[in-house]
Amino acid sequence: MKVSTVIHNGRAVPVCEIAPGMAVEISRLVPGTDTLMELIEGGAPAMKRLRDALDIERSAKAHPWFSTETVEWRAPVGRPATVYHIALNNTAADPTLLYRPAFPAYFTKPTAALTGHGQPIEILPHYGLTHNEPELAVIIGTGGRNIAIDQAMDHVFGYTVINDVTAVGMRKEDRFYGGYPTAQPDGSVKYIEETLTYPARYKGADSFLPAGPWIVSTDEVSDPANLQVSCWLDDELIFKDTTANLHFSVAQSIFWISAHTTLFAGDMICMGTAGHPGAASKPLSYGDISKRGKTVSIEIEGIGRLVNPILRKSAPDPRAAFAPVTDLGASIRKHGLVPKDSL
Amino acid sequence: MKVSTVIHNGRAVPVCEIAPGMAVEISRLVPGTDTLMELIEGGAPAMKRLRDALDIERSAKAHPWFSTETVEWRAPVGRPATVYHIALNNTAADPTLLYRPAFPAYFTKPTAALTGHGQPIEILPHYGLTHNEPELAVIIGTGGRNIAIDQAMDHVFGYTVINDVTAVGMRKEDRFYGGYPTAQPDGSVKYIEETLTYPARYKGADSFLPAGPWIVSTDEVSDPANLQVSCWLDDELIFKDTTANLHFSVAQSIFWISAHTTLFAGDMICMGTAGHPGAASKPLSYGDISKRGKTVSIEIEGIGRLVNPILRKSAPDPRAAFAPVTDLGASIRKHGLVPKDSL
Repeated sequence: MKVSTVIHNGRAVPVCEIAPGMAVEISRLVPGTDTLMELIEGGAPAMKRLRDALDIERSAKAHPWFSTETVEWRAPVGRPATVYHIALNNTAADPTLLYRPAFPAYFTKPTAALTGHGQPIEILPHYGLTHNEPELAVIIGTGGRNIAIDQAMDHVFGYTVINDVTAVGMRKEDRFYGGYPTAQPDGSVKYIEETLTYPARYKGADSFLPAGPWIVSTDEVSDPANLQVSCWLDDELIFKDTTANLHFSVAQSIFWISAHTTLFAGDMICMGTAGHPGAASKPLSYGDISKRGKTVSIEIEGIGRLVNPILRKSAPDPRAAFAPVTDLGASIRKHGLVPKDSL
Repeated sequence: MKVSTVIHNGRAVPVCEIAPGMAVEISRLVPGTDTLMELIEGGAPAMKRLRDALDIERSAKAHPWFSTETVEWRAPVGRPATVYHIALNNTAADPTLLYRPAFPAYFTKPTAALTGHGQPIEILPHYGLTHNEPELAVIIGTGGRNIAIDQAMDHVFGYTVINDVTAVGMRKEDRFYGGYPTAQPDGSVKYIEETLTYPARYKGADSFLPAGPWIVSTDEVSDPANLQVSCWLDDELIFKDTTANLHFSVAQSIFWISAHTTLFAGDMICMGTAGHPGAASKPLSYGDISKRGKTVSIEIEGIGRLVNPILRKSAPDPRAAFAPVTDLGASIRKHGLVPKDSL
């Protein structure tokens, strides 16, 4: 089954696919289901009611079906509690790394970054180099804490396609470099070299998380670790990879996040980009949608094809409102900086 | 006016303070207001209705008032769209830094990390060194995109106290160090030294965002940039600072975030910690709540006092489920690593 959220008769409504290219409002089949979140929170019983109603509706071939060709799409789940992203989760990145954790590192995006299939990815001049990260995303069905690996897949509602749009230009700015003060046994303080980076802006601007068009329910996805992922900028194929190259599986990611933080129905886990710019023969020359391309298309085998136009807007540079930084590093000049060890 | 969310008669309900230590359910005063988010989304008209009803109720001194002494508190807004945090926003950090951006860098926490006044901060053994970051938090009233600095304060609903609990132990793990492949004009590729860190786990474990007890409405806070902030571990004063030492103001933070991402009613912006461990004479020796202390108390002048017990739990180490990392750095060994420039 495929479900999503679209604008129909002027309202954002949950829909399911009833035939290729045709949708029907879920509230027509299961009265009272006004958002996709309600369907997800309803669990297996809600899905069974919808399936049964869909079978009857299909045999009716009634007029409330409508074409999805011209419809305005929204992100399937508009306001999940949290959107998690597994970072650098691809074997292609390993040749470029000297350290990575043995378990999934993750970040979260503001839910405001979500947008739907067909909606523009908006790029402002000060974002700098901005690239696509095509990814499989997991929609959590039943939430929980401390979910066991061998039960993790029972917590999945379905899968969708996302683009983890990333502005490398902003990434270069939102960092801190200095010395982390560390007390020594003799009572003195050493400043250990440290870099901290913060992803909410460079990953989280409005429209930096296109998702959809459909969520495909788990029964239609035999193996999420063996799906082809392709990405085109206009007609040029710029990514081709498979989810088999991800380090950490869906089950491992659910286990790991829920070992720290409670997952809720509707939460998304974006599995990390398929392929890595550094692995390509022409790194990043293709990916900078701040400079070229009209449309990004991402297709994941059996999940769908997410297409978004690129909208480069002009806007005043908000950085101009801030004064330059001065007077940094007095403690480091006094005490010295101890280079970080092999970590 | 002070508003929050507590458990009363077995349900989580929005409440307001009617007299010191006494609360009343908001739905009694303004029927149909079942969550604090509804009050916030209702804007100035909803607040006026509540104020008027509160005045009448105060004169009645009726029995539905209840003591907040023994009540179970929840985070005032349980599921905001997004919780933003301004990183390293304090002049005390500057002596330890060689680079910081000239504008507010920010991260987001999973909303699952939110907890209420009096609820435990849960620490697992594998979190490692974990410290408190006492902060003023802004609750957005009217959302928006591209909010002008001189209108930003009109978008604030109120203020509360939060603890941006941070596990330095996990922070050390969730990083990537290597070379960012960068195409050169001659067609070759250079690997520029790069560290990326991801904060969602070390900042976002369950209970890592205590908030409350009350949201204080803006009319009762004359200057959010001039408030004393104090923090105690049990009876020991471990932080004392003022929000005057923050680099970026509430208005600048609203301007900056909304220049990139739409803010919604109920969103929180946590303004950055008051003081910095590195600025203390005994850096971090006091702050490790994974090792000592029974209770953390944070008081912000005019906003309130947030108290949370520390609960150190035993649990299996989830890291044991993952294999060690091998075979990193092939490209860097082949091409070399170019040290990052002064940025």
